[in-house]
Amino acid sequence: MGSSPPTAEIFAIGNELLLGEVVDTNTPWLCRLLAGLGGRVRRAALLPDDVEVIRAELEGALRRKPDLVFTTGGLGPTEDDRTLMAVALATGRPLEEHPQALQMVAARYQDLAAAGYVASPELTPPRRKMALLPQGAVPLANPVGAAPGVLLPLEHTTLICLPGVPEEMKAIVQGALTPYLQSRFGKAGFAELRMLVDCGDESRLAPLLEDIQRQLPQVYIKSRARAFGPDVRLRIYLSATAPTPEEAHALVEEARRHLEERLAKDGIASEILNHG
Amino acid sequence: MGSSPPTAEIFAIGNELLLGEVVDTNTPWLCRLLAGLGGRVRRAALLPDDVEVIRAELEGALRRKPDLVFTTGGLGPTEDDRTLMAVALATGRPLEEHPQALQMVAARYQDLAAAGYVASPELTPPRRKMALLPQGAVPLANPVGAAPGVLLPLEHTTLICLPGVPEEMKAIVQGALTPYLQSRFGKAGFAELRMLVDCGDESRLAPLLEDIQRQLPQVYIKSRARAFGPDVRLRIYLSATAPTPEEAHALVEEARRHLEERLAKDGIASEILNHG
Repeated sequence: MGSSPPTAEIFAIGNELLLGEVVDTNTPWLCRLLAGLGGRVRRAALLPDDVEVIRAELEGALRRKPDLVFTTGGLGPTEDDRTLMAVALATGRPLEEHPQALQMVAARYQDLAAAGYVASPELTPPRRKMALLPQGAVPLANPVGAAPGVLLPLEHTTLICLPGVPEEMKAIVQGALTPYLQSRFGKAGFAELRMLVDCGDESRLAPLLEDIQRQLPQVYIKSRARAFGPDVRLRIYLSATAPTPEEAHALVEEARRHLEERLAKDGIASEILNHG
Repeated sequence: MGSSPPTAEIFAIGNELLLGEVVDTNTPWLCRLLAGLGGRVRRAALLPDDVEVIRAELEGALRRKPDLVFTTGGLGPTEDDRTLMAVALATGRPLEEHPQALQMVAARYQDLAAAGYVASPELTPPRRKMALLPQGAVPLANPVGAAPGVLLPLEHTTLICLPGVPEEMKAIVQGALTPYLQSRFGKAGFAELRMLVDCGDESRLAPLLEDIQRQLPQVYIKSRARAFGPDVRLRIYLSATAPTPEEAHALVEEARRHLEERLAKDGIASEILNHG
């Protein structure tokens, strides 16, 4: 990967997302995690439970050669859970019963049956389905639900398939996926700073922010207004991704100094909300 | 459009979305609205404030020829608001100052200046920028903020560009955009039903749901589990989109009858949560 920050794309899969029945909180959670590790999410999409659509999107993503592609959703026992079939088609890695994954699923249903949560631990076809992984994949233990996550290393990109239930998704990322993430991201860094500015008129700040953006193109500068008015204060976000956390922090600090100077010159007060 | 439901794609634009700093609630809101009108959202994406990325995505969407493409975000006065530039490049419709849009922006800043919310009503370059629309576009009045929305009719697709601030986005859709949506969607219909089922084991329900799905492919059937257990009940969503609301309702009702029969045969109790 050299010194440029690892790139990622994220696909959240499920018809319920495109019907607006469920708000996808997995993507922002993964975005924050990856930004915090020093990565850069280039693109995210919500996709229906349609093998051909998912396949086409994955093929498009793999052509762009990001370091990581995450999917969430579509790993469960029912026929409408089709993510891994789409992965198999997009990567040419046919689905095979993975012995370790089957063991994970079997152990889960034995526990559930022992606790009286399911009638029988029998590995019915829908349960076995959750152990069908693309050739060459590594299962990631799911301590909350039944379907293991999937890590599939490909030539340029590593594909990481996670369940759609947020608790399961997070438990896998914070558990079985952690060693992989640590090895992949090394000590790349991200820094962020939020400011409140005593100015309700974004158009007045625009030229000032543009000047600083030109001076420091590596820093991402964003203002956000929710309303106009004399009592309204704008929020300004400064963030940077760099090979190390120290470099990222130094870039953000430099942008802050420039910004505070310019604001002071215009008689605009500002306040730092938080450092990240 | 004939009798098939209008299709849509949605792009939410803003680096802050891919950093996970802001959760995109605009897309689910638009998805629910469009589903309720009888439309079908095929795909949604989160994109960075990068003209070339947005342009490529819009070009890809236009090749798929959905009836509607929505964008949210990137219409404001600052240089990082780049949505309309990307639209201009993707559609070959250069940006031009639109007299009616300029009037809207001017009126907004006159009101704001009169109320003391901004120092002057002067049409500075950042303010004028909000009146630069792609050739052939119609501005949509924004009663909450300064940047008008944009309606751009193209050969196969109508492009609708909305601000990213949720209050502004909703105000435009529920105001200036409503006559267009009514004329476009006619009386196409959507129906939905949610059930609670006394069964915590999704894998037990899977074969039963698959049978009903095969009998009624027009109905979208989805089960959702958040946990296992004897006290846990699964949620089942039945929904359908059809040329009229009556037809959509009849399809969902037929699926409900089949499902209740099958559940009763297996001794599983169920309860209807709501009809939509």
